[in-house]
Amino acid sequence: MAEKSKILIIGGTGYIGKFVVEASVKAGHQTFALVRETTVNDPAKANLIEKFKNLGVTLLYRFFPSEFGNDVDRVNAVEPAKSSFDAKVQIRRAIEAEGIPHTYVSSNCFAGSFLSSLAQPGATSPPRDKVTILGDGNPKAVFNKEEDIGTYIIRAVDDPRTLNKVLFLKPPQNIYSFNELVALWEKKIGKVLEKVYVPEDKLLKDIEAAPIPINVILAISHSVFVNGDQTKFEIEPSFGVEAYELYPDVKYTTVDEYLDQFV
Amino acid sequence: MAEKSKILIIGGTGYIGKFVVEASVKAGHQTFALVRETTVNDPAKANLIEKFKNLGVTLLYRFFPSEFGNDVDRVNAVEPAKSSFDAKVQIRRAIEAEGIPHTYVSSNCFAGSFLSSLAQPGATSPPRDKVTILGDGNPKAVFNKEEDIGTYIIRAVDDPRTLNKVLFLKPPQNIYSFNELVALWEKKIGKVLEKVYVPEDKLLKDIEAAPIPINVILAISHSVFVNGDQTKFEIEPSFGVEAYELYPDVKYTTVDEYLDQFV
Repeated sequence: MAEKSKILIIGGTGYIGKFVVEASVKAGHQTFALVRETTVNDPAKANLIEKFKNLGVTLLYRFFPSEFGNDVDRVNAVEPAKSSFDAKVQIRRAIEAEGIPHTYVSSNCFAGSFLSSLAQPGATSPPRDKVTILGDGNPKAVFNKEEDIGTYIIRAVDDPRTLNKVLFLKPPQNIYSFNELVALWEKKIGKVLEKVYVPEDKLLKDIEAAPIPINVILAISHSVFVNGDQTKFEIEPSFGVEAYELYPDVKYTTVDEYLDQFV
Repeated sequence: MAEKSKILIIGGTGYIGKFVVEASVKAGHQTFALVRETTVNDPAKANLIEKFKNLGVTLLYRFFPSEFGNDVDRVNAVEPAKSSFDAKVQIRRAIEAEGIPHTYVSSNCFAGSFLSSLAQPGATSPPRDKVTILGDGNPKAVFNKEEDIGTYIIRAVDDPRTLNKVLFLKPPQNIYSFNELVALWEKKIGKVLEKVYVPEDKLLKDIEAAPIPINVILAISHSVFVNGDQTKFEIEPSFGVEAYELYPDVKYTTVDEYLDQFV
């Protein structure tokens, strides 16, 4: 290779990590080290941190684990979604136990997954005749365009207000109940759809009977549209911040605008 | 902050990852993406990879999980070491299942942990009167200085010969049975030590009775010095390569040289 690899050492001040950092610099690699918060404030590690800086090591301070959906600490899902959320909870607790600076991102529903089909399994555009609604359609959910999710995440990287917090993506114009969403779509296409409501007890039986991955999708939909897990709690300053409040200048795509492409 | 953070996206071609990569570049961050092997060779991802390159994204291709001891796939440890090794095995299988390019490093015994005390618990220098030997002292183990471990790891980063392999650190002059090690030390200090041999069945009972972390250390010592887990297998080209063979120019510190500092 013409250029030497960049190297990131996770645990760069650890027993072996510090030798790997030094060997990397010595060999001419651009070198990065992820350093936990407790390490930065540990007087016993101060000389090592100073040494790394003098060597030209770039210190990284924050980790965003892959989550990007519901806030897994405030979700009440049934299986098989429950296990998947539980695994993410375990990762959160491990990050915290290790003192790794972090931001958790709760981006709620991806527009491409939920809005483009109006959450109708298998559809690639919103329905024009009949729509299936889980539960009574009244709990509110949040829908965000993927590009905007990327933008908000990157804004948060260097922002001390998001350090060790959950960043909730709840832009005010993207919060809709399923019934409101259907009404918005009906208005856009100038047509009233036939509505099929699926009661919760039938949905729970459907989830048990469905194959993978349909059962996972249905269980997530149950959490979002029947339980209302994305909106049934207040964001307390002790655990979270809201992206639109922090970055009001981001021109996010509203649900209303997003649906226009399908009219 | 005067300078914007460098950002590494693990899973940069994933559903949300690609939007995070683009948002990062757009916001002026130096951006890195870890890309799995299957992705690089996937025609459906070719445009995305090309786009990333044009955006100035640095692609990272290889992951070295934190292992740095025995080869966990070729170890036969008792508890509580067994569970710790099993967890690393699970990480290996997850890496492979996801198609993440990797190198596993089996660095065997750290000199600072094992040589500086001649594996006598609690000691900070090799003994001058009495030495405790686990088992019969005949199985061979490998001892490497931490700086050399760092050097070998960094050599392997850009070396295609180590891709998806275990890199074993077994420099020829650092392979000793415990009895040979004691004999070398006795020669250096010009004195014969009293030797206390601990039979395996007694050691196994000691491990069960000992508190954390002594039980972990003893269980690892059982694997290394009684089972001979570091040297009881041949390195097959299908799964491994040896560091001294790949990098004969590295001037590693021999066990003989290392012990001189304590004479």
